[in-house]
Amino acid sequence: MDLAKDILVAHERIQPYVLETMVEYSPWLSQLCEGEIWLKLEHLQTTGSFKLRGATNKVLSLSPEQREHGVITASTGNHGSAFAYIADKLHCKGKIYLPETVSPAKVAPMKLYDVELVYHGQDSLESETKARESAAESGQEFISPYNDPFIIAGQGTIGIELERQIPELDCVLISVGGGGLISGISTYLKSVKPDIEIIGCQPVNSPVMYESVKRGEIWEMESLPTLSDGTAGGLEAGSITFPICQALVDEYMLISEEEIQQALIWLMEKHYHLVEGAAALPIAAVLQNPGRFKGKKVGLVLCGRKIGLPLLQQILSSVGG
Amino acid sequence: MDLAKDILVAHERIQPYVLETMVEYSPWLSQLCEGEIWLKLEHLQTTGSFKLRGATNKVLSLSPEQREHGVITASTGNHGSAFAYIADKLHCKGKIYLPETVSPAKVAPMKLYDVELVYHGQDSLESETKARESAAESGQEFISPYNDPFIIAGQGTIGIELERQIPELDCVLISVGGGGLISGISTYLKSVKPDIEIIGCQPVNSPVMYESVKRGEIWEMESLPTLSDGTAGGLEAGSITFPICQALVDEYMLISEEEIQQALIWLMEKHYHLVEGAAALPIAAVLQNPGRFKGKKVGLVLCGRKIGLPLLQQILSSVGG
Repeated sequence: MDLAKDILVAHERIQPYVLETMVEYSPWLSQLCEGEIWLKLEHLQTTGSFKLRGATNKVLSLSPEQREHGVITASTGNHGSAFAYIADKLHCKGKIYLPETVSPAKVAPMKLYDVELVYHGQDSLESETKARESAAESGQEFISPYNDPFIIAGQGTIGIELERQIPELDCVLISVGGGGLISGISTYLKSVKPDIEIIGCQPVNSPVMYESVKRGEIWEMESLPTLSDGTAGGLEAGSITFPICQALVDEYMLISEEEIQQALIWLMEKHYHLVEGAAALPIAAVLQNPGRFKGKKVGLVLCGRKIGLPLLQQILSSVGG
Repeated sequence: MDLAKDILVAHERIQPYVLETMVEYSPWLSQLCEGEIWLKLEHLQTTGSFKLRGATNKVLSLSPEQREHGVITASTGNHGSAFAYIADKLHCKGKIYLPETVSPAKVAPMKLYDVELVYHGQDSLESETKARESAAESGQEFISPYNDPFIIAGQGTIGIELERQIPELDCVLISVGGGGLISGISTYLKSVKPDIEIIGCQPVNSPVMYESVKRGEIWEMESLPTLSDGTAGGLEAGSITFPICQALVDEYMLISEEEIQQALIWLMEKHYHLVEGAAALPIAAVLQNPGRFKGKKVGLVLCGRKIGLPLLQQILSSVGG
């Protein structure tokens, strides 16, 4: 399988359903670094994150019979919202498993669309386990949020846009959770610009990919709570993103909770963007290490925007008057 | 003068310097109204507001000699930021008058660019008066934030984009301060779709254009403080926006402070957009009158994003836990 080629195919295929999100020059970060820093505003993607790209590519890869028979996922976050939207849009029978404890605010974006919501279990692991069982029993396709070549190829289409939008790009900083986003983007970009630097950003409180790559195997570890909940959690055994990250990610930067919070505030104050914690990781990495990017042309991917009002209140209450 | 034609000319002229801002479908407002509601994300324009369009068109209309001799304005807000950016970009000698009391946060975006900042007087009226005197003495051009056909033509280019982006548009809601934005957009849209409805939105606390149109003359009145500070304040005698609004604005909707605040919160909660009070007026108008827009295709112009962190804190602290 040639993943870089699959990304080009995905780009053509998903174009009618996803936005080419804009890049915004950051005069603030560019002055700070004495470089050229651009923000890829992927949080403005339809349904609020890059997840729509992968989900769309996956659903479009299914046969009419599979779509009719139905697809299943488990997600309380951006993947769930993206899945709900595109399943409805493409008239694909969709079912989302959610824990019984999920907050109404997280379900509201899914309820906008014609999908079946199934509440099961007390946490995301329980609902996901049930979703996989149900898929296995019914023969319906389970749609992973990251561990699937079609999902990765969809996310990789951001790489195509970055290369077109930022001339002579030297370096890209990307948040890493399951690794679908960074696997796709780095596969494409390294295929056309082998010297490009790819930097993965993870919270100190949940650096699973970083620890796994360091140890040379998928590492099971306890994660602490993090503002970057979109990247938190473990890697599935046999994740295809793991060898891709091993091969293509040049460096990892780990970000503390305090730094994530500062980056979220900085982004509101300077650029007036409201994003989720995961999207603030690349911003924090640059704010903490401006000298590292001196003279470079750098792209920071802002991956999603789903931040709740209570968290926003809490973060802002830390700012001095 | 044919202003609609001037808008087409402006569109060609300013294209290399301004963004075609995206429109975002609002599933939430569309369901609420049983219509099709789109947000024009003009707050994502370079420098954070529509003001860049007019300022760019104005500066590009000057002769090389005029640009060399220099241009002057007075603004602590979006017009000032836009002016600073484009004067620098076009190598036009620019000078901005600011009151001595201006906050560092408001000056910071202007300091990014190569313009001269002159601090004078205790409030915006004093610094503007000084700026006009200085322009009159030096023969440098004073750039009005709204009372100038080139400024209005620049702002009107949003109308061209709206007509292309939203098929069969029925109605547009636009914030009104000096009236440059609504004059430009309504002039263009009524020239190509005479039946389109144009609704002006003003805060109850500073409804100067509304009161002026109602009385048939530019009306001097005291404004109360408002969250929509971008639209607050009086109309200059002889403003060319006044007769345009008289002729082309079909209806006004007045918005209370409470409603502006609710709309700002709603926009953060549902669409994750951080905008300034003025940009929330059209949202508030729809939230308050959903039945008014039933079955219609409606565009809401989000005009700018310059909201300070202290105000954001204050607004969010009103939200129940």
